[in-house]
Amino acid sequence: MTDYPYPMLDRPDMIWSKQTNKKSDLKVHEWIETLGDKVPDWSGYDVTLLGVPLSKSSISTSAACENPEVMRRAWKSFETYNLDEDLDLSVLKVLDLGNVKQHTTDILQTHENIKEAMASLRTYHPHTLPIMMGGDHSITAMLIKGWKQIHPDERIGILQFDTHFDLRDLKELGPANGTPIRNLIESETIKGKHVHNIGLHGFFNSRALRDYADKHGVCYTTMKKARKQGMNSVVNEALKKLESEVDTIYVTVDMDVLDITQNPAAPAATPGGMYTHELFDAVQIAGEHPKVKAMDIVCLDPRKDVGDMAVKSAVHVMLSFLTGYCRRSEDE
Amino acid sequence: MTDYPYPMLDRPDMIWSKQTNKKSDLKVHEWIETLGDKVPDWSGYDVTLLGVPLSKSSISTSAACENPEVMRRAWKSFETYNLDEDLDLSVLKVLDLGNVKQHTTDILQTHENIKEAMASLRTYHPHTLPIMMGGDHSITAMLIKGWKQIHPDERIGILQFDTHFDLRDLKELGPANGTPIRNLIESETIKGKHVHNIGLHGFFNSRALRDYADKHGVCYTTMKKARKQGMNSVVNEALKKLESEVDTIYVTVDMDVLDITQNPAAPAATPGGMYTHELFDAVQIAGEHPKVKAMDIVCLDPRKDVGDMAVKSAVHVMLSFLTGYCRRSEDE
Amino acid sequence: MTDYPYPMLDRPDMIWSKQTNKKSDLKVHEWIETLGDKVPDWSGYDVTLLGVPLSKSSISTSAACENPEVMRRAWKSFETYNLDEDLDLSVLKVLDLGNVKQHTTDILQTHENIKEAMASLRTYHPHTLPIMMGGDHSITAMLIKGWKQIHPDERIGILQFDTHFDLRDLKELGPANGTPIRNLIESETIKGKHVHNIGLHGFFNSRALRDYADKHGVCYTTMKKARKQGMNSVVNEALKKLESEVDTIYVTVDMDVLDITQNPAAPAATPGGMYTHELFDAVQIAGEHPKVKAMDIVCLDPRKDVGDMAVKSAVHVMLSFLTGYCRRSEDE
Amino acid sequence: MTDYPYPMLDRPDMIWSKQTNKKSDLKVHEWIETLGDKVPDWSGYDVTLLGVPLSKSSISTSAACENPEVMRRAWKSFETYNLDEDLDLSVLKVLDLGNVKQHTTDILQTHENIKEAMASLRTYHPHTLPIMMGGDHSITAMLIKGWKQIHPDERIGILQFDTHFDLRDLKELGPANGTPIRNLIESETIKGKHVHNIGLHGFFNSRALRDYADKHGVCYTTMKKARKQGMNSVVNEALKKLESEVDTIYVTVDMDVLDITQNPAAPAATPGGMYTHELFDAVQIAGEHPKVKAMDIVCLDPRKDVGDMAVKSAVHVMLSFLTGYCRRSEDE
Amino acid sequence: MTDYPYPMLDRPDMIWSKQTNKKSDLKVHEWIETLGDKVPDWSGYDVTLLGVPLSKSSISTSAACENPEVMRRAWKSFETYNLDEDLDLSVLKVLDLGNVKQHTTDILQTHENIKEAMASLRTYHPHTLPIMMGGDHSITAMLIKGWKQIHPDERIGILQFDTHFDLRDLKELGPANGTPIRNLIESETIKGKHVHNIGLHGFFNSRALRDYADKHGVCYTTMKKARKQGMNSVVNEALKKLESEVDTIYVTVDMDVLDITQNPAAPAATPGGMYTHELFDAVQIAGEHPKVKAMDIVCLDPRKDVGDMAVKSAVHVMLSFLTGYCRRSEDE
Amino acid sequence: MTDYPYPMLDRPDMIWSKQTNKKSDLKVHEWIETLGDKVPDWSGYDVTLLGVPLSKSSISTSAACENPEVMRRAWKSFETYNLDEDLDLSVLKVLDLGNVKQHTTDILQTHENIKEAMASLRTYHPHTLPIMMGGDHSITAMLIKGWKQIHPDERIGILQFDTHFDLRDLKELGPANGTPIRNLIESETIKGKHVHNIGLHGFFNSRALRDYADKHGVCYTTMKKARKQGMNSVVNEALKKLESEVDTIYVTVDMDVLDITQNPAAPAATPGGMYTHELFDAVQIAGEHPKVKAMDIVCLDPRKDVGDMAVKSAVHVMLSFLTGYCRRSEDE
Repeated sequence: MTDYPYPMLDRPDMIWSKQTNKKSDLKVHEWIETLGDKVPDWSGYDVTLLGVPLSKSSISTSAACENPEVMRRAWKSFETYNLDEDLDLSVLKVLDLGNVKQHTTDILQTHENIKEAMASLRTYHPHTLPIMMGGDHSITAMLIKGWKQIHPDERIGILQFDTHFDLRDLKELGPANGTPIRNLIESETIKGKHVHNIGLHGFFNSRALRDYADKHGVCYTTMKKARKQGMNSVVNEALKKLESEVDTIYVTVDMDVLDITQNPAAPAATPGGMYTHELFDAVQIAGEHPKVKAMDIVCLDPRKDVGDMAVKSAVHVMLSFLTGYCRRSEDE
Repeated sequence: MTDYPYPMLDRPDMIWSKQTNKKSDLKVHEWIETLGDKVPDWSGYDVTLLGVPLSKSSISTSAACENPEVMRRAWKSFETYNLDEDLDLSVLKVLDLGNVKQHTTDILQTHENIKEAMASLRTYHPHTLPIMMGGDHSITAMLIKGWKQIHPDERIGILQFDTHFDLRDLKELGPANGTPIRNLIESETIKGKHVHNIGLHGFFNSRALRDYADKHGVCYTTMKKARKQGMNSVVNEALKKLESEVDTIYVTVDMDVLDITQNPAAPAATPGGMYTHELFDAVQIAGEHPKVKAMDIVCLDPRKDVGDMAVKSAVHVMLSFLTGYCRRSEDE
Repeated sequence: MTDYPYPMLDRPDMIWSKQTNKKSDLKVHEWIETLGDKVPDWSGYDVTLLGVPLSKSSISTSAACENPEVMRRAWKSFETYNLDEDLDLSVLKVLDLGNVKQHTTDILQTHENIKEAMASLRTYHPHTLPIMMGGDHSITAMLIKGWKQIHPDERIGILQFDTHFDLRDLKELGPANGTPIRNLIESETIKGKHVHNIGLHGFFNSRALRDYADKHGVCYTTMKKARKQGMNSVVNEALKKLESEVDTIYVTVDMDVLDITQNPAAPAATPGGMYTHELFDAVQIAGEHPKVKAMDIVCLDPRKDVGDMAVKSAVHVMLSFLTGYCRRSEDE
Repeated sequence: MTDYPYPMLDRPDMIWSKQTNKKSDLKVHEWIETLGDKVPDWSGYDVTLLGVPLSKSSISTSAACENPEVMRRAWKSFETYNLDEDLDLSVLKVLDLGNVKQHTTDILQTHENIKEAMASLRTYHPHTLPIMMGGDHSITAMLIKGWKQIHPDERIGILQFDTHFDLRDLKELGPANGTPIRNLIESETIKGKHVHNIGLHGFFNSRALRDYADKHGVCYTTMKKARKQGMNSVVNEALKKLESEVDTIYVTVDMDVLDITQNPAAPAATPGGMYTHELFDAVQIAGEHPKVKAMDIVCLDPRKDVGDMAVKSAVHVMLSFLTGYCRRSEDE
Repeated sequence: MTDYPYPMLDRPDMIWSKQTNKKSDLKVHEWIETLGDKVPDWSGYDVTLLGVPLSKSSISTSAACENPEVMRRAWKSFETYNLDEDLDLSVLKVLDLGNVKQHTTDILQTHENIKEAMASLRTYHPHTLPIMMGGDHSITAMLIKGWKQIHPDERIGILQFDTHFDLRDLKELGPANGTPIRNLIESETIKGKHVHNIGLHGFFNSRALRDYADKHGVCYTTMKKARKQGMNSVVNEALKKLESEVDTIYVTVDMDVLDITQNPAAPAATPGGMYTHELFDAVQIAGEHPKVKAMDIVCLDPRKDVGDMAVKSAVHVMLSFLTGYCRRSEDE
Repeated sequence: MTDYPYPMLDRPDMIWSKQTNKKSDLKVHEWIETLGDKVPDWSGYDVTLLGVPLSKSSISTSAACENPEVMRRAWKSFETYNLDEDLDLSVLKVLDLGNVKQHTTDILQTHENIKEAMASLRTYHPHTLPIMMGGDHSITAMLIKGWKQIHPDERIGILQFDTHFDLRDLKELGPANGTPIRNLIESETIKGKHVHNIGLHGFFNSRALRDYADKHGVCYTTMKKARKQGMNSVVNEALKKLESEVDTIYVTVDMDVLDITQNPAAPAATPGGMYTHELFDAVQIAGEHPKVKAMDIVCLDPRKDVGDMAVKSAVHVMLSFLTGYCRRSEDE
């Protein structure tokens, strides 16, 4: 080892041993494992991450496709240790599978890939909790369809944090970012009454959409009402109702649920929206629930971010959710 | 109709019928009517909008003159349907009269035009609720003088949301954006005790101004106090006191009342200010009160906005106020 | 007329007469006619404009789809009178046909629409000069295919201003923004030797692409060489060669040909590129040539613009081209 | 005085008298005195300000060194009169001593200068309350060491508002911005149990740091807990505990304690952080306490600010603290 | 001197002597003298600077009023020594008189102040070369009228660098920033044929304005023509023609003459405009001419600047002009 | 291989073979090799790259330390093939050694590391051409000292592209970014007459510095003079003079030599500076010269960049230089 001519450079064969020495105190990017140049041993993971970099399906131009990479770059700002709860996420073993393949011009092919990705996930390691980093909201329909394909008899419920119903007309828009929930209802993948949406706003959802929601029994709590009642109470109520009716609860977080002054990177966000600490508490509660089995985070366009505030919130959503999940394991 | 050569373009003579078909489900820009190329039938409108694009009267350079156009462009992001209240604003008939004429170099002439605009409004269709989109705060003095000119016997009260008293010295500054309330008091258009200002801050109003306020009986609640007492309670108290003393309450919203972190487009906004959801609730309460007869929204400089967050808040203020107004009609 | 109650507002029925009075002195937005609510009389127009707002086909996320609207908004900053040449573009009659219909998720359908738009244009008013506002460069292949469909026996040449060959592999990317020229060659719409590309850069085109270009006889002049020889001389030579071999010359301007320091809105632009005054001169020369029959302007993403510099350059390209076209008419 | 040839310019010898005439109504920049071209009479001041423009010691590149100048420029936006409390800060006599000398390349020399500055302050006018404008957090260790040098027998406590412990390893980083509290503990300047940190976050402090904190008895309240308990209650409790154990309480405000959506200028700020009005209340309470004898404000990088929102918050922190200090004097 | 207690602070009474010691090597801000707190001895100055912070007279909202302060702040980036010419500007004695008083709402009063400022300048120290920092172009009319008031028999010529004629209709706009040259012609302050404008663009001046220019004999060279002929040759020709017909040549530099890609801070700048090094050469040549007796720099809005590039160009214009002026003195 | 469960993900063990297949057509990031997890075989490389991320030594705060990483990220936008010269840089074997170790607080230690890095480079593989990515200009002094340490008898000359002399006083500033050339002269590492600086500006270098330059025989050509004479001619002359007097020519490119309108990321850049295509030509000529043996690129702060224009220029400088170097090899 003495003949390495660059004492002032990090010697490459020393880097690994240095890293393993500090195992007990990790940053998030040191903790989450990625696919190297070998097929890994799949067993033993608790959580799988999947990037879904599709935003060509957005009604307005969006660079939400850049979000998975930007979230990964932001991991290095976070510890695995959660001081608030005295709990270290590194007890979980997490594998980042990379990104679903994208076709440059054929969105439906990409959608098919997304569905297949979830189907493979459920086939090959169904014991893991998958977290998907979008992309826009169109991916949620494909992910849940992929799930259903492997578990055709499960009743699936959705806990949605969103400023919008996402129930717009499939015939007009195709499988775009305004239609995923309707897509799932009309394809009979889920039932409308098994959706609970928290954070909707006045002035950003038409009456026709509310009529559609009512007709199909979709449940919802507007942001104004949630603020009066208290976020935690609203989330607990929604989970209680869903747990009696479904086998699996899928959580979908559209980042435009946040107040636009706290999330400039979601152009469809609105003033008067949810605050970040409210959202973190909400997903942590959801993460604790034993029937909650997957989450996605969508519709964040990093090019519009200011000082990385939005992408840091997105990473925090993921970590708060996993905090809840750890708690669940403790309880069991 | 079959010989139109562009199947992939929107056929122009089909646009209108398409729009009328969806009457029941409107975006704000489809709902608000504008002056076409004919003088309209004035009767039958409930609300009139007026742009007042003057900001040359601002002490610091401001592009608040661009605000009316920017607010109009933002209408298309809003539905008329308010999910929070299950109420559709499109039951109201609203006419946008366009903008008051501006002189390039003669501010006093422009001020005269503003006064005359309000006087004409009150003469030709006094049954409508006028909402004015500023411009800077100097316009409020002219608008209320125009009102008074037609209704000389009315006692007018002002409910002001503002970080500042706007009582600065007329002799030093002329009719600028720091002086409108003093202008109205000194011209005996209103009485000081008929003004109630909510949202004032420590460190942004001199003692001399407070002394002037006290001497003329101007009422006020600082933001710090309003936060402790609760915004809704403060607004209700202010309205109760004003209703016993005046015939007409004019609401003026200086957008700098918002916290600067939620409104970068109002350079005179401060940290520690009002939050958007508090302001929306406040103007909705005001809109319900039967003596409230007009509102203006001022001092928003769109060039300093970030991600349109401030202009969306301004439009929301207008829509929340009209939500209250709809409620009032229901009650009657 | 005396009973109009708002002397300080612009009387709506007076606006038209005011505009017609100043016919001789127009801004570009007052000159270019748009489709109203009737199908117009198609005859009598010299130039047709078409917006092609497609940029989902871009390899990297792009908002070039917003460019047609942004260019239209910028028209009001330009006079029709060109002081440099003492020539008024308003002698031409120009019709803006609007935008080609876009499908939210099916790019190939949108491509079909674009082709059909050009085919309709050539069928119904072949006497006009079409100018297309993109969108990304994938549209050029569709536009020329639409032309060819109606004029199957015409030999079409391309004068291209571009930093790149745009000859990338169709099989890998599909009809994306890096492949339009190859698409046209492989579909035998044009011949490689009938393409002349000006402005290519070292380091931004692979050797494989140059080999492909050489094999198919594509002509090109790099920016470095054009700078040494003089832009006007290069353009005149290219036109002279093309005029002897083809019936129709189509001009395509990829705005990334400009130096990135003069065009931040084209992310694929490079340092060391063309300067705006060089490009304006180049397209004016092209516009004068009798075989030049169409032009498109592509790959400008307005969200990345700084102070509207790039969009103003795009409008200037269009007006410089029309200046050449006017000259041509004078010569005839 | 009549022969001054420029009636339209401000006559220089009149500026001072004009300013003195309005003594009773001052802006902050008119109130705070600066060193002129003479050594002043030191006695009679209540408060001394010191700029400490060092941020080369930051782990990530920071321009916090520009903060003292930017804060000074922002003074002119603030009145000395605090309307919330009907209290005028101008009863205090405040002297701005300027900035501590910086060496371009030798950080340890600059650190020595900072320590000496505080030592001189305590030697020559110990009756004043010093407020330091950083700079990054490394300065706090030097300032407190300077204090200790003059008052070796005092027990010093620290009330810290911070997202981080600032207890990182000195051996690895040297006296950087992540290590000041550890520096003070290891040099036995203070005891760990005499530090109370409010505003810490989960995910931004490693377990090793918490273990270090626990081992040395450092007290802390996370932001999540503070939000539940109420900020004012937390601050009062911390002061009560400290007052029984120490002689002097030093307040250090790391501006990254603020929520990143309210403070884009502190790159280490996080979502879910403290809101500005909570921080203003907290430091005002601290300012009232008789054992609180100094404060610093650190880690604000003005180059990342948006619309001056962060720098205005920093000035407000200083003025809120002085408001508390005035109250204290009233009580005595 | 040994009892100064802060060895690490700059001792205030030492600052002056330190500065005077380095007299031979100055930054521009150390060289230009400002009015202190005494009326100075007026004699002995070569150059006087005057800030004219008026931009309320601009047709579009402008913050050009902030330009004088921003230019002053940028002085510290420049040496007085011009290496290109081996010439030190500090041989000139320059006095900055400060800014002309502004009225908040009465533009005509401010215009009167500007005229009076120039009249006083010519009365009290006519031996100095005045340089005015605008403000918008409306100020040029007032400054030349003030000059004419004191020198009624002088024939005044104007060398104008501008993208526009600035000959718009006074009756429509009043004395705004689009009308100064027409204002001077119609008030018979100057003759049209004594104006030479360099840098005009096609598409940014209407035919009506060109007709007006031709009718009054205004001379001009478009940018396109100047680029072909060479800038220095054009300027020399213009000066030669003017020197035979007038007594005094006033240079006015509208910063929008620069290419918009080199000057984002002048929103009316255009692509294809003048480059900075061409403008610096042009004003240096003008500065050498013995009949050139004043210059103004107008229409730069610092809020739109990027990285201070435009304000640095404005300062460089002033210094290049003074370089010419020094040369002239050498020649005499 | 058939049992890999994710057909829509890139199979990790397939990535390498895919990459090797396309060897003949590379992007710059695919071509340049980096240190993997083994010590490589050092022989066989033509060029070595070294990141020197030090900017704490800058007089004004700079994030030029981030430049090496930002340049590396930008490689993927460039082909190795240079179409202008029909030459593929991939004939060269290039190794990126990574970054020189930085100490958080001890700049002199970091400087020592930099010197040692160059000394090691010259000891272990003196046959390679080193290119250093700064960092600020202080690194140049250390790099050349490291070179000299290994080759004590070589006479070293410097070809400098810079707006400034960089001859400021070492005693005042230490080894900062304003002093490297003086540092080298005073330490007798080089002789003043062996420095030739191209691109200096009037107004940005004091007379004292010119006097120092003259006294030590430093050669220079101002930008104004270079523009008149032609850049290529100036560079050739400088090389001719140096080749007769020295053994080794070191090229140092301070990116502030570029016009500020083409390089907002170099805050010390000025208007009237060099254009990118001029700089690219200049370094290509230098690269061809057989005595040119190293180059550095310094003083680019990526945080101030606009649309990556500056970082792309920096990468282009490196590639243009290597183009010249390839040519040289061809000639031999």
